[in-house]
Amino acid sequence: MTLHVHKYGGTSVGTVDKIQNVAQKLADEKAKTGHDLVVVVSAMSGETNRMADLAKQMQNKPSAKQMDVLLSTGEQVTISLLCMALQELGQSAASYTGSQVKIITDDSHTKARIEDIQTDKIQTDLADGKIVVVAGFQGITVDGAITTLGRGGSDTTAVALAATLKADECRIYTDVDGVYTTDPRVEPKARRLDRITFEEMLEMASLGSKILQIRSVEFAGKYNVPLRVLSTFQEGSGTLITYEDEDMEKAVISGIAFNRDEAKVTMEGVPDMPGVASKIIQPISDANIEIDMIVQNVAEDQTTDFTFTVHRNDYDTTMKLLQAISKELGAEKVSGDDKIVKVSLVGVGMRSHAGIASQMFAVLAKEGINIRMISTSEIKISVVVDEKYLELAVRSLHESFDLSQE
Amino acid sequence: MTLHVHKYGGTSVGTVDKIQNVAQKLADEKAKTGHDLVVVVSAMSGETNRMADLAKQMQNKPSAKQMDVLLSTGEQVTISLLCMALQELGQSAASYTGSQVKIITDDSHTKARIEDIQTDKIQTDLADGKIVVVAGFQGITVDGAITTLGRGGSDTTAVALAATLKADECRIYTDVDGVYTTDPRVEPKARRLDRITFEEMLEMASLGSKILQIRSVEFAGKYNVPLRVLSTFQEGSGTLITYEDEDMEKAVISGIAFNRDEAKVTMEGVPDMPGVASKIIQPISDANIEIDMIVQNVAEDQTTDFTFTVHRNDYDTTMKLLQAISKELGAEKVSGDDKIVKVSLVGVGMRSHAGIASQMFAVLAKEGINIRMISTSEIKISVVVDEKYLELAVRSLHESFDLSQE
Repeated sequence: MTLHVHKYGGTSVGTVDKIQNVAQKLADEKAKTGHDLVVVVSAMSGETNRMADLAKQMQNKPSAKQMDVLLSTGEQVTISLLCMALQELGQSAASYTGSQVKIITDDSHTKARIEDIQTDKIQTDLADGKIVVVAGFQGITVDGAITTLGRGGSDTTAVALAATLKADECRIYTDVDGVYTTDPRVEPKARRLDRITFEEMLEMASLGSKILQIRSVEFAGKYNVPLRVLSTFQEGSGTLITYEDEDMEKAVISGIAFNRDEAKVTMEGVPDMPGVASKIIQPISDANIEIDMIVQNVAEDQTTDFTFTVHRNDYDTTMKLLQAISKELGAEKVSGDDKIVKVSLVGVGMRSHAGIASQMFAVLAKEGINIRMISTSEIKISVVVDEKYLELAVRSLHESFDLSQE
Repeated sequence: MTLHVHKYGGTSVGTVDKIQNVAQKLADEKAKTGHDLVVVVSAMSGETNRMADLAKQMQNKPSAKQMDVLLSTGEQVTISLLCMALQELGQSAASYTGSQVKIITDDSHTKARIEDIQTDKIQTDLADGKIVVVAGFQGITVDGAITTLGRGGSDTTAVALAATLKADECRIYTDVDGVYTTDPRVEPKARRLDRITFEEMLEMASLGSKILQIRSVEFAGKYNVPLRVLSTFQEGSGTLITYEDEDMEKAVISGIAFNRDEAKVTMEGVPDMPGVASKIIQPISDANIEIDMIVQNVAEDQTTDFTFTVHRNDYDTTMKLLQAISKELGAEKVSGDDKIVKVSLVGVGMRSHAGIASQMFAVLAKEGINIRMISTSEIKISVVVDEKYLELAVRSLHESFDLSQE
């Protein structure tokens, strides 16, 4: 028996009409394919924020444990309403909260990690022909405390259920119809990909394509759950995220990701001694500031330049911290720029193809775009350029690597 | 250690401010008395109706099982918010849903009955000095299905917890400051009672004083849990509902209850034969119509008159059913009146005092109020009179039995 896990996010179940639409899609799918269906749903859009607002009025820093008790009601409302809508269509259905499944997590409230899923009740219901509706985003500790998985947790629930139930596919229904070669709002010629590998998707996701949560992609990759991103509101086959295989389209580059949220800071003329990098980074990390790219050039005259990027919101704090560290280390000066963007080429084909980097740099040079930083990984090349060049860089790279053609 | 269970209904926790007010009261009480406190809360007022509306849009007759999954989220929101508010005041607190406690019920969804309550976790928290906040109205079956207890279920939760925990008192906080000798909107001289017996309260409640649910009063009586009704919004000691004891004020009559929701129907000239009463009542009962008072006079000329009261909403249906039955039985005619009220004197003192009935009838006669029906029990005398006499009857009886004096 083929088993599919579907996941519908908050905007897909945001109103009575939309829940009825989802119920109709599921009932049709069940009637047409006869597949076993497990459906993971989020809270109706807006509900989580409404409750978080209530919590903030109650407590200056709302208790994480109580926050989980509060927020987990959101998905509980959706599972009951979706079951009612399915039953109204004559389709039998059963609902489960995270506690009822049980989805066992650790006790890190508001950002818990799934440790185990009990599937016996779900499997009984599936055998009875029921569509099983599970509340996303939530679980329970072994002591019976309610937990939530943090932002995007419903994706994680869906993938974890798919892995545990050994589902044939995990479908993430959202408001976009798949993964594109780049953001269509920046490059109208962007093309929807039929397939992409887990590794590429991880790079695309972490670089700002907000379609899927990184944790759920990692999880799907780890347990080899084929993941498909589709639109709730349009027909189409979406994008399948899977492991590289023989049939995979042989493109060198799959897509261009970019990130407008970064700022870069540089400490110039740092004495080139062991332990300096750590002395620079430690205070930043202690202030809970996340560092993305780090670049250090080879030393000249016993000094070196040390550059890294942080989130723009952390730019001012980082600059202040660096001024202090700079004095301590006897560096020449601290400089920074928060009007930058990071543009990345992503593709597993890069592994076996030389010349991608040089083609990229040549394209940018031809357009007169100065490259501020470069960083590479096995399947990605990232450059930092001035913010004003974002569209030009993305479009010229998209054109040069022929991404609008299959 | 003294243990009190408090219950706050939907209007007492209807807004952020009101929840904070309840938290303040609880923290003050804890600081002042040092009592162990368990608090049962309802959904914020309006939430249950909002969710029931959503359900009706989903399913013509919403599944009772899914309705319970949906509605139980209401109290879950309140327990988390109240815990946050308590913690903000520096008072440690723990929250429990019905499933978490566990409050085990049968599987009669939307009207489940409590079968067992596990109190070990609650007792550990109380020993730690925490205020324990429990979601009212809800439970869980042994199979893990979420259930609700029906209207007024939070009172039942509170009383059941108090009984199981052997609490010293169960306090029901509501929007009135106690039980009155009669409705103050009808008789401004109505006096708040300091004490009333369980039996009297049952009669008062079933006769239309909507302060407490009958089931919770029965339960409190059965397990001898002293029950106190108080106002959430005013200071005061409310009304204690308990068993009759030596100290009890020696009033013959405790109060006057009335019910405006009834209608009376009469079948006249019914042949006086065994089995006739059953033949009249059975079809009414089969139509799910509840019958309150039944009066049958002694037979004259081998025929009798048979009169009973039903809810006004059922008056038309009842009249139609009776017309049909009347033909079958060869009765003379069917008559009815939906402009009536029932007025009742209630008091345990009645048991040992003769003359209450005659005093009541004399008072009504003096005011020119014709009595349509009479029915008595050990601690209650009810009369049916024309609707227009309600205020006059209540006030003259209140005066005659001296109810405004302690």
